[in-house]
Amino acid sequence: MEIVRYPPKQDWQKIIQRPLQQFEVIRKAVLPILQAVRQEGDKAIRRYTLLYDKVEPDAFQVSNAEIVNSVKEVTDDLKAAIQQAHHNIFKFHKSQVEEVKKISTMDGVECWRKSVPIEKVGLYIPGGTSPLFSTVLMLGIPAKIAGCKEIVMCTPPDGRGKIHPAILYTAHIIGIDRIYKVGGAQAIAAMAYGTATIPAVQKIFGPGNQYVTVAKQLISQEGIAIDMPAGPSEVAIVADHSAEAEFVAADLLSQAEHGKDSQVLLITTEEKLVKDVKKAIQRQLAQLPRSEIVRDALDNSKLILVQNIDEAIELVNNYASEHLILMLENTEAMVEKVINAGSVFIGKYTPESAGDYASGTNHTLPTNGFAVAYSGVSLDSFMKKITFQQISAKGLQKIGPIIETMAQAEKLQAHKMAVRVRLKQIEDHKK
Amino acid sequence: MEIVRYPPKQDWQKIIQRPLQQFEVIRKAVLPILQAVRQEGDKAIRRYTLLYDKVEPDAFQVSNAEIVNSVKEVTDDLKAAIQQAHHNIFKFHKSQVEEVKKISTMDGVECWRKSVPIEKVGLYIPGGTSPLFSTVLMLGIPAKIAGCKEIVMCTPPDGRGKIHPAILYTAHIIGIDRIYKVGGAQAIAAMAYGTATIPAVQKIFGPGNQYVTVAKQLISQEGIAIDMPAGPSEVAIVADHSAEAEFVAADLLSQAEHGKDSQVLLITTEEKLVKDVKKAIQRQLAQLPRSEIVRDALDNSKLILVQNIDEAIELVNNYASEHLILMLENTEAMVEKVINAGSVFIGKYTPESAGDYASGTNHTLPTNGFAVAYSGVSLDSFMKKITFQQISAKGLQKIGPIIETMAQAEKLQAHKMAVRVRLKQIEDHKK
Repeated sequence: MEIVRYPPKQDWQKIIQRPLQQFEVIRKAVLPILQAVRQEGDKAIRRYTLLYDKVEPDAFQVSNAEIVNSVKEVTDDLKAAIQQAHHNIFKFHKSQVEEVKKISTMDGVECWRKSVPIEKVGLYIPGGTSPLFSTVLMLGIPAKIAGCKEIVMCTPPDGRGKIHPAILYTAHIIGIDRIYKVGGAQAIAAMAYGTATIPAVQKIFGPGNQYVTVAKQLISQEGIAIDMPAGPSEVAIVADHSAEAEFVAADLLSQAEHGKDSQVLLITTEEKLVKDVKKAIQRQLAQLPRSEIVRDALDNSKLILVQNIDEAIELVNNYASEHLILMLENTEAMVEKVINAGSVFIGKYTPESAGDYASGTNHTLPTNGFAVAYSGVSLDSFMKKITFQQISAKGLQKIGPIIETMAQAEKLQAHKMAVRVRLKQIEDHKK
Repeated sequence: MEIVRYPPKQDWQKIIQRPLQQFEVIRKAVLPILQAVRQEGDKAIRRYTLLYDKVEPDAFQVSNAEIVNSVKEVTDDLKAAIQQAHHNIFKFHKSQVEEVKKISTMDGVECWRKSVPIEKVGLYIPGGTSPLFSTVLMLGIPAKIAGCKEIVMCTPPDGRGKIHPAILYTAHIIGIDRIYKVGGAQAIAAMAYGTATIPAVQKIFGPGNQYVTVAKQLISQEGIAIDMPAGPSEVAIVADHSAEAEFVAADLLSQAEHGKDSQVLLITTEEKLVKDVKKAIQRQLAQLPRSEIVRDALDNSKLILVQNIDEAIELVNNYASEHLILMLENTEAMVEKVINAGSVFIGKYTPESAGDYASGTNHTLPTNGFAVAYSGVSLDSFMKKITFQQISAKGLQKIGPIIETMAQAEKLQAHKMAVRVRLKQIEDHKK
């Protein structure tokens, strides 16, 4: 990990640059997959599954028997943990339900807004080295609270054509029963266009490798909504003298183990902390099975010394980190100054892994600097907000002339006429 | 306008198809503009302004003197109307402010969510045949309520290098003072990349012609957020025997005058209404100056007869209209059944033009069927929601083992270690 000492502001942009993504090559590989699935449907899905997952499942849809089996295969310990995480995530996302407020903007003019579930949503759960049942919780729970009618889940099969039981068990307790053994760009294509087996949806959620990411980006240009643009995972830690090197090191490593392209930053005022963290990383790294991935990620990463904590916060606001950990003596004042971040972890007993799994917040967050303008996944992501209005005859007599004046000034005569014909009828009635 | 009588369900998709958009040709025209502005900055802006707007303004930024002048040039009537619309729109959008709720998901585990303004936003206001000061209200007011620090506005100059005074006056009362005389794809590029004169922003809002739309789509792929994908404006009206043909006709026409590619639909159970609406359209059309545009739009449009109102609502939910007008005897039950729409207008005295100008709701809405998964512009559009969490030592003792179990099962050992090192320290302290 590179140490950067007291960089002047003009160097900040360079220092906080993310590792570059090469999408063009991947785009060229993904486009024909999308096209094939659109044209050939299940036939193409079968072909790509054989090609990439090296397996030909008997059926793409997970059977009831498989779901029932998964309940037996998951240990009681893990079941209890998943249930508690479910409880916490449910509670936090349920608190995001918005009440309808009718606003009378003028006498007789009532406006309101109602959140309505997106009817058909698709959840993508990556396969690969880790069975990410936590992502099933993070996407499935808000989809259920929202009341989405059709929740479809795709996740790649393993070499025996199976899905990890923890993924099936988690989907089961949430109440998701349409699960398909399809992964990669072909899964995104299936949920975007629909096949004979897999229904088309209106919005697609979930993380994935670069193929999945690019496939989502491409189908979003065709009008299918996606949760957010994605990049590699990242964390920034802002720490002062009160921080413990052992905790800082563990948090940096836990982000670094996500992938070779992950990035982790420590921004601190303390020379000693930098030294101690470096040592602690070496010590802890020796105990980690995924040390190769971690080492690559640490190559993208930096320990940055700054003059004071205000400068640290300014720098980290520029970075707009997916995860931001504040280990500071006086956190409260600093929390108020955070303007760009996906999710913030406050204090020394709040590891980022709490939010990844179980505390209640969502772990699907904006990466790659997108936190300047995008929010993480929440209940809102599974709903759209429709506005409504109702105007009484008396209300129209008040607001009507205002609309007419404005429409006239914008040279939109028919807009004016829509008011005029109504006001005329109201006046005629009075006679 | 084509009349479609009692179409069977299998024909619905065909009937409610939108007019096709040809983006590929426009994309080829827009890409070099984006590239030129990125590389040459103001120089390219000057060149394209001369080419497309046929004018070379002395300065791109609107001066204080121009703003002061605009206050004199707008009539008192129009000022009063704009101020009342401002009041209503402000009141409705202010009601969307979300309070921070701290949720204790478990003992010692606190999670909350805070809306934080997007720092730098860009508003695009189209020029062309209508001076759309109403769009200044619709984008500027929520940007101000959100508390966006930098609000930049671009709008094309007229042939004399001027901006319409109503646009400047409206920006002035909202408190937007960085206004640039730049339009088209070059304006979007300027706000995306920044030039010496025009600052780069993090999210770009606003309607526009196909060049603007495609430019927004292209820069959104580069990570700059946009309000929503856009298509031509549209309205669907669901009406029964209680509807008045004169009102229905006026609403259809007011949508049709937006552009040649607009689409309007009437869905009704009443043969007589269809006949009367056709006649009323002819009568009203004779009084409209924009009749050529309207005629083209009506060619894309349909009067659809259905068996009953439930079927009408089902059809219109399939269409997912930007604007939906319900003129029904029993509206309340039907309002509940609306699941896909941008904004809904209820009852016979609620013309769509009320929402376009002054009632309080936003007029920037999802078109082209995007209403199935997208919301219109609201206060949320100018903010991102950051989640926060804070766990106490006691809280971590409760939730820690759950996180460890889950991290272990996902084979993410460093995630587990981030909890372990902390729990160990807490236990050591107790000794």
